[in-house]
Amino acid sequence: MNESELGISSGRSWTTRRDKKARQLAKVEKLVKGRIIPADRIVEVLENLIVTGDCVALEGNNQKQASFLSKALNNVDPDKVNDLHMIMSSVSRPEHLDIFEKGIARKLDFSYSGAQSLRMAQMIEDGVVKVGSIHTYLELYGRLFIDLTPNIALVAADKADAEGNLYTGPNTEETPTIVEATAFRDGIVIVQVNELVDELPRVDIPGSWVDFIVVADRPYQLEALFTRDPRLISEMHILMAMMTIRGIYERHNVTSLNHGVGFNTAAIELILPTYGESLGLKGKICKNWALNPHPTLIPAIESGWVESVHCFGGEVGMEKYVAARPDVFFTGRDGSLRSNRAMSQVAGQYAVDLFIGSTFQIDADGNSSTVTSGRLAGFGGAPNMGADPHGRRHATDAWLNMITGESQIARGQKLVVQMVETYQNGHAPVFVESLDAIKVGHDAKLPVAPVMIYGDDVTHVVTEEGIAYLYKARSLEERRMALAAVAGVTPIGQQCSVEMTEQLRQDGIVALPEDLHVKRTDAKRSLLAAKSIDDLVKWSDGLYEPPAKFRNW
Amino acid sequence: MNESELGISSGRSWTTRRDKKARQLAKVEKLVKGRIIPADRIVEVLENLIVTGDCVALEGNNQKQASFLSKALNNVDPDKVNDLHMIMSSVSRPEHLDIFEKGIARKLDFSYSGAQSLRMAQMIEDGVVKVGSIHTYLELYGRLFIDLTPNIALVAADKADAEGNLYTGPNTEETPTIVEATAFRDGIVIVQVNELVDELPRVDIPGSWVDFIVVADRPYQLEALFTRDPRLISEMHILMAMMTIRGIYERHNVTSLNHGVGFNTAAIELILPTYGESLGLKGKICKNWALNPHPTLIPAIESGWVESVHCFGGEVGMEKYVAARPDVFFTGRDGSLRSNRAMSQVAGQYAVDLFIGSTFQIDADGNSSTVTSGRLAGFGGAPNMGADPHGRRHATDAWLNMITGESQIARGQKLVVQMVETYQNGHAPVFVESLDAIKVGHDAKLPVAPVMIYGDDVTHVVTEEGIAYLYKARSLEERRMALAAVAGVTPIGQQCSVEMTEQLRQDGIVALPEDLHVKRTDAKRSLLAAKSIDDLVKWSDGLYEPPAKFRNW
Repeated sequence: MNESELGISSGRSWTTRRDKKARQLAKVEKLVKGRIIPADRIVEVLENLIVTGDCVALEGNNQKQASFLSKALNNVDPDKVNDLHMIMSSVSRPEHLDIFEKGIARKLDFSYSGAQSLRMAQMIEDGVVKVGSIHTYLELYGRLFIDLTPNIALVAADKADAEGNLYTGPNTEETPTIVEATAFRDGIVIVQVNELVDELPRVDIPGSWVDFIVVADRPYQLEALFTRDPRLISEMHILMAMMTIRGIYERHNVTSLNHGVGFNTAAIELILPTYGESLGLKGKICKNWALNPHPTLIPAIESGWVESVHCFGGEVGMEKYVAARPDVFFTGRDGSLRSNRAMSQVAGQYAVDLFIGSTFQIDADGNSSTVTSGRLAGFGGAPNMGADPHGRRHATDAWLNMITGESQIARGQKLVVQMVETYQNGHAPVFVESLDAIKVGHDAKLPVAPVMIYGDDVTHVVTEEGIAYLYKARSLEERRMALAAVAGVTPIGQQCSVEMTEQLRQDGIVALPEDLHVKRTDAKRSLLAAKSIDDLVKWSDGLYEPPAKFRNW
Repeated sequence: MNESELGISSGRSWTTRRDKKARQLAKVEKLVKGRIIPADRIVEVLENLIVTGDCVALEGNNQKQASFLSKALNNVDPDKVNDLHMIMSSVSRPEHLDIFEKGIARKLDFSYSGAQSLRMAQMIEDGVVKVGSIHTYLELYGRLFIDLTPNIALVAADKADAEGNLYTGPNTEETPTIVEATAFRDGIVIVQVNELVDELPRVDIPGSWVDFIVVADRPYQLEALFTRDPRLISEMHILMAMMTIRGIYERHNVTSLNHGVGFNTAAIELILPTYGESLGLKGKICKNWALNPHPTLIPAIESGWVESVHCFGGEVGMEKYVAARPDVFFTGRDGSLRSNRAMSQVAGQYAVDLFIGSTFQIDADGNSSTVTSGRLAGFGGAPNMGADPHGRRHATDAWLNMITGESQIARGQKLVVQMVETYQNGHAPVFVESLDAIKVGHDAKLPVAPVMIYGDDVTHVVTEEGIAYLYKARSLEERRMALAAVAGVTPIGQQCSVEMTEQLRQDGIVALPEDLHVKRTDAKRSLLAAKSIDDLVKWSDGLYEPPAKFRNW
């Protein structure tokens, strides 16, 4: 080898990352047994592997948590390891923020902070957490390969073998993405597993990407975040679901889609086999999904509506059901689900006709946010899917349907639907003059307000009043009026007169239930294919095994 | 197991894909040796594994070709296997289209067809090829998980071991993505390898995702598509490069970026160490890249400009150089590059400040296309990166710099730059009234015209005349005038008067070289850090090994 091959040309080293890794690995040589970190030495090992100022990706993802490793990180001596730059797609556990209070960590790049959003906002305001940026999942994954490449990855898997090959099973999620970015730039990959086995059911991540395995004292934390109890679906949800099916899915021939998680969209899933069936829509709409294994989708699957579902992650209790339906779900040779958050986000962005979700606030221009006073919940995946991807070039009926002009270079558009009741929980208006996000962003000194979905990407808004076909509006003013026409008695709603609403209906820019041949009195819970979690279990022939908190029998 | 676990509830099977796969595998049991297909039985094996009408993903990607398998597919008996639905990100080899002439294949979903674009257009017009859609790479990958999941994947790797684990080395590209989508929906994965070995340098794809290995008679085809010979860089390219560095990279503080492949952008790469250095910009701009290993980036890397490069794929001849620069490139434990086209496209879409590319035609509104008369070249990756991703939420200086209004919910924008000479090759005007793409799309009966990058996403246009800062235009009319102001003596250019250009300069919407303190007379080839391929080899200390066609010594 000449000097260059050794990486010493031009007087500088080109292997500083690799050399640093080698130094860190040497420090723990006597603490570990090959690839295996004894569980009781984990804190000591982390203190030796992690260097002050390192960029550490801690998984922290949407559902599964590397909870053994996050607890261990929280126990390192802040005098030995501090000032870390954390990357967490999801800030979910108390110690995810405790490490900032102790000074172990200082900077944070993240996507979502559901349960910790209140504390997070306060800690940012107090300067305890220095936020890099708040991301969607997919853009955070992208940055792992550009300017946020981790020195250390702390992730979770179900099982490992002695070579470090990993089985992540139904909850593969974003683990391979974090590991790839870290492993291939001379970072150190540490994996907590529930079990060390001789033979894996399948390999989800190759051992040559993994440095260390530690068998955790208990299985990693896993939450059922995508389960909605049908008992909590109201007749108003059902009315909106009926309008959505008729006025959007049927009208535009929506065959591929993503549903947000909420009772509104759960209602759609649950009336496909009843109301959808009565309209003769089976096999015509809602065939291909980018979606976690929502239990409320079981009746539609069992009734033959669903051709395929690609999943971001798994869902607790759905393991056996999914494994028994390989025609529908992506499963491995071992029979269980293979999820992949990065690729499902790509698919949800680029390959589906429609995104539909709910929100807490919508302003007069259709901008929306789930940020409410004092809470900085982040973005998750919605803005990635709830935006028109201008790089899309393939055409579907639904996409082409959004073309309104006559231009020779007109292109289609993704259907981005907001589905909300005009009043949140019956008291706070959803339609507001100004989003709370503006103040929250200002208080947290964010460079731009944390808007979830921008109004210019929203094609439809559905409320209990009707549907606003925003994509058809011919001017900004008409767009505002259309939104106001479905905003009920909120302050925004009062800006549209009865006469104006009539005109918008005649122009096909607003539709009330009667315009869609939806009878308000038909919106009954009897339309739900399943009215309870127990019903879902029955639909699944006992394969769905709901977590205890959803059982009342 | 109860009936449901066996997949027989509701009187239907839920394992049709798995059952079909088992049937097909059984048919070839006697032709293969475990996972290994003898090379001389490959045609027979394909005839037995592939069923008429199957969806077949053939790799055909941007650089590497599963050439042994494509030839084998071209030799199957069309009476036994026909009417296939092909998915090819890149249609590159004659047999990729021969199979359509023979009736083996009928439908095609693809992204790019460089060398075959003329024949392709003709075959579409003649109805021999039925096009599903033309995609960007990333949206095609997304669809693999939604409504274009392959039954069969025919891909290429460098090496395999007996367990079917794959080493794809520097050219990992999109192979894992195709394999994942196929393997996890009970498709059949067949891999041609250059070599079967006992131990792999590293594992890029786990064996549990792979069904069959065949050792090809010769290494897979691999093209050097990202090598630009500095000898062909003109002073006009250098002038535009100087303007781009001053007027865009420096002005907006562009730290992360993607360059298209072309002499324009190669000129930028080659004057960073000279002109860029003289401006004191090292360490301030152009630090993090989503880019293949362009040989023309070597001098900038060696001069310390580049912190990181994540690659879509490899580049022939750059293997040793990349392996010796692990601080910059993503490399594996074996020392060689790890590319990943899907994740690099994600990064190029979401995580970089700027995309800059060239094009053949731009219309008055800034819409552009590389489609020219009779050629249907497809899209590749440019539209994915050359569009503002509305799902982006993290802020950088460059992104925030694009905000022009005062709105409380203003957001930044990706910098999308078109860099063109006003006349292509000195004769055909680049700025045109109407894109050829409209007629080509019409002739091929495409649902929308094959526009490469839409004008509403373009923030800057650079020509030898100057820079149009389109994002600053306050009206559509002003935008058109700004574009015309840099369009030279093309028909579009003549629409902007001298007085109007003056006004646009004063308003900062157009900048001529002198406004940027760029002297036309300074734009000399002496500014190029490397003036030839040989110079690049020298910069690399002999590590760069250019393919024979680029050598003249």
